[in-house]
Amino acid sequence: MKTQSEIGIVETKYFTFAEGEDKITLSSGEKFGPITVAYETYGELNEDKSNAILILHALSGDAHAAGYHKGSKKPGWWHKMIGSGRAFDTDKYFVICSNVLGGCKGTTGPISLNPETKEPYGLSFPIITIRDMVKVQNRLISHLGIKKLLCVAGGSMGGMQALQWMVSYPNKIESAIVIASTLKHSAQQIAFNEVGRQAVMADPYWKGGYYYGGHIPAKGLAVARMLGHITYMSEKSMEEKFGRQRKSPTTPFRFTADFEVENYLHYKGDRFVERFDANSYLYITKAIDLFDLTSCSKPIHEIFSKLTAKVLVIAFKSDWLYPVHQSKEIAKACKMAGLQTTFCEIDSDYGHDAFLLEIDEESHLISHFLEKVYKDVENRH
Amino acid sequence: MKTQSEIGIVETKYFTFAEGEDKITLSSGEKFGPITVAYETYGELNEDKSNAILILHALSGDAHAAGYHKGSKKPGWWHKMIGSGRAFDTDKYFVICSNVLGGCKGTTGPISLNPETKEPYGLSFPIITIRDMVKVQNRLISHLGIKKLLCVAGGSMGGMQALQWMVSYPNKIESAIVIASTLKHSAQQIAFNEVGRQAVMADPYWKGGYYYGGHIPAKGLAVARMLGHITYMSEKSMEEKFGRQRKSPTTPFRFTADFEVENYLHYKGDRFVERFDANSYLYITKAIDLFDLTSCSKPIHEIFSKLTAKVLVIAFKSDWLYPVHQSKEIAKACKMAGLQTTFCEIDSDYGHDAFLLEIDEESHLISHFLEKVYKDVENRH
Repeated sequence: MKTQSEIGIVETKYFTFAEGEDKITLSSGEKFGPITVAYETYGELNEDKSNAILILHALSGDAHAAGYHKGSKKPGWWHKMIGSGRAFDTDKYFVICSNVLGGCKGTTGPISLNPETKEPYGLSFPIITIRDMVKVQNRLISHLGIKKLLCVAGGSMGGMQALQWMVSYPNKIESAIVIASTLKHSAQQIAFNEVGRQAVMADPYWKGGYYYGGHIPAKGLAVARMLGHITYMSEKSMEEKFGRQRKSPTTPFRFTADFEVENYLHYKGDRFVERFDANSYLYITKAIDLFDLTSCSKPIHEIFSKLTAKVLVIAFKSDWLYPVHQSKEIAKACKMAGLQTTFCEIDSDYGHDAFLLEIDEESHLISHFLEKVYKDVENRH
Repeated sequence: MKTQSEIGIVETKYFTFAEGEDKITLSSGEKFGPITVAYETYGELNEDKSNAILILHALSGDAHAAGYHKGSKKPGWWHKMIGSGRAFDTDKYFVICSNVLGGCKGTTGPISLNPETKEPYGLSFPIITIRDMVKVQNRLISHLGIKKLLCVAGGSMGGMQALQWMVSYPNKIESAIVIASTLKHSAQQIAFNEVGRQAVMADPYWKGGYYYGGHIPAKGLAVARMLGHITYMSEKSMEEKFGRQRKSPTTPFRFTADFEVENYLHYKGDRFVERFDANSYLYITKAIDLFDLTSCSKPIHEIFSKLTAKVLVIAFKSDWLYPVHQSKEIAKACKMAGLQTTFCEIDSDYGHDAFLLEIDEESHLISHFLEKVYKDVENRH
């Protein structure tokens, strides 16, 4: 493999829908706008605009997928996957990542000001779906002058968006990479999200969603995030990382964080509260729960049969939140639709988090996949 | 199998430690008392007191294991397992079940009045362990005039108590039945409990544990219980029971309980709050987290080698909260200690809840096991 180099300083950019076309029709039928989208790009768009890849983030991600913001030492959430010589090779590809609709990192969401009231939307923000998120992304892509994306790629909720691209805009993608994801959210997955939402809404500072400008529902959101983190790790990875280690085994037992695993969860909960909006958490988890491509009027493989896109499906053995059988169902639907489909199960112990951690194996799979897709596109031109 | 008949009306009895010996030394070193124990019995103690079985309840259980309380239609938590012709056959055996120390169903716990202050203990109640619970049970058994129990049996936390009996009172048991349990709580198991505790403690009505007489931390405790219920079911059983069914699919999306699985969890959370004390939840989950028989000064099989008891270990295939490998470790330690050990993995889809639901298979295993143990005891006499 060629030498790698990382993305340096990047800036988040903003695209606001033009007047006159500043609304979209949501899945609920409601018209909603205006909408601003926060996004970042890495690499250069080629002349015929055929090298653009859209990276799709998961629940708590944002547009900042790679590089560093000025003054910060924290790289983007998929930094090791994007850059010169990396899986999403910025020497070849133009990589885009945008914050989802309903998010809290620059794209319009419940924390944004409602231009009619000049107050944050709070719970007057409409319920949104993965389809609505993708609709907004499509507008951004058009704005950037891109007619067809070389690839849409993401893990977890990002994978759902990739699948939704396959359904909503089959002619606008050359390929899709769907990692640790599902065709529909299961009862258990809905259940975990609902416990998180209830934790947020049980916090008296949540105040029915209208807490902006005052105390935030920090404790509730931290509890939700702590639960999330358990589901992102595997039993084995937790055992190896923490076991039954205690912070100070001589301290008399109390209800303070005592075991290292408790400290870790508290830390993760507290950090999340600093960077994420509680209402966005509610809206985005709900969008995830509503995701169900199998509820369409036709079987999903019939819908996929409109596509010519190549598909790469990746799953992780120890992922019990989005278990391997769900990825196999995606691959099966693609194969039944006659799509050129690659399925790969990575033998990782990291659980669901593996999509952020198994950089080496993912990079090999993705770079070879993209090379082939890109070569075919170039040959066609 | 012979005809079965159920236990009818039963009454909870109470045993208060006699003055002068009204305290026990807890694992923490602290002396604690006075102590009252709530218990129920089913069947008759035989003349030589050799037919007594102690049933050990799980986190949210209590002394009411079988039969009905006057005026109630709700049977005890293991009703189908206890009775004439049932697994714990009351025609042969004298079955006892007591509420654990720290509980809220009649045995001394944080909701009990501290005789010194005349106020409920709240968080001044001492941290307790599974060993302390068993110590209290041992006092009850002595009070009932029983020198040696025919069997100690329980699932989940009940299984931990059975294991603790094997360590604390090896000469006082003829056998032990350990169902869906573990030698030590793992990082993931601690993590789930900690999220539940944090949900309770995040509730402003919790008030540092001193909420008695006022509002109770109902929302926090309900969230904790909702999470618990996810871990008690399997992915498959949840999918089969609820799938993506919605209460009313035409209702516009909102944050009310929308999916059936959400309704179920809300219902379970609300019912739990009516019957369980939030502080008991904290103390008992902490006792579970502190449980670790592998941290003794000697390997556990060396400690078990003091025993002559026969052991039956049961696990359920789809139980991911107390996975099969943990039961296998129990069985292995028993076998390495030279104990007569039977291990059985039941092929159930019910997840951890299976120990309350797989009545048929459990009954076959347990009744045959007990018959053999009892026959050997009778032959010896």
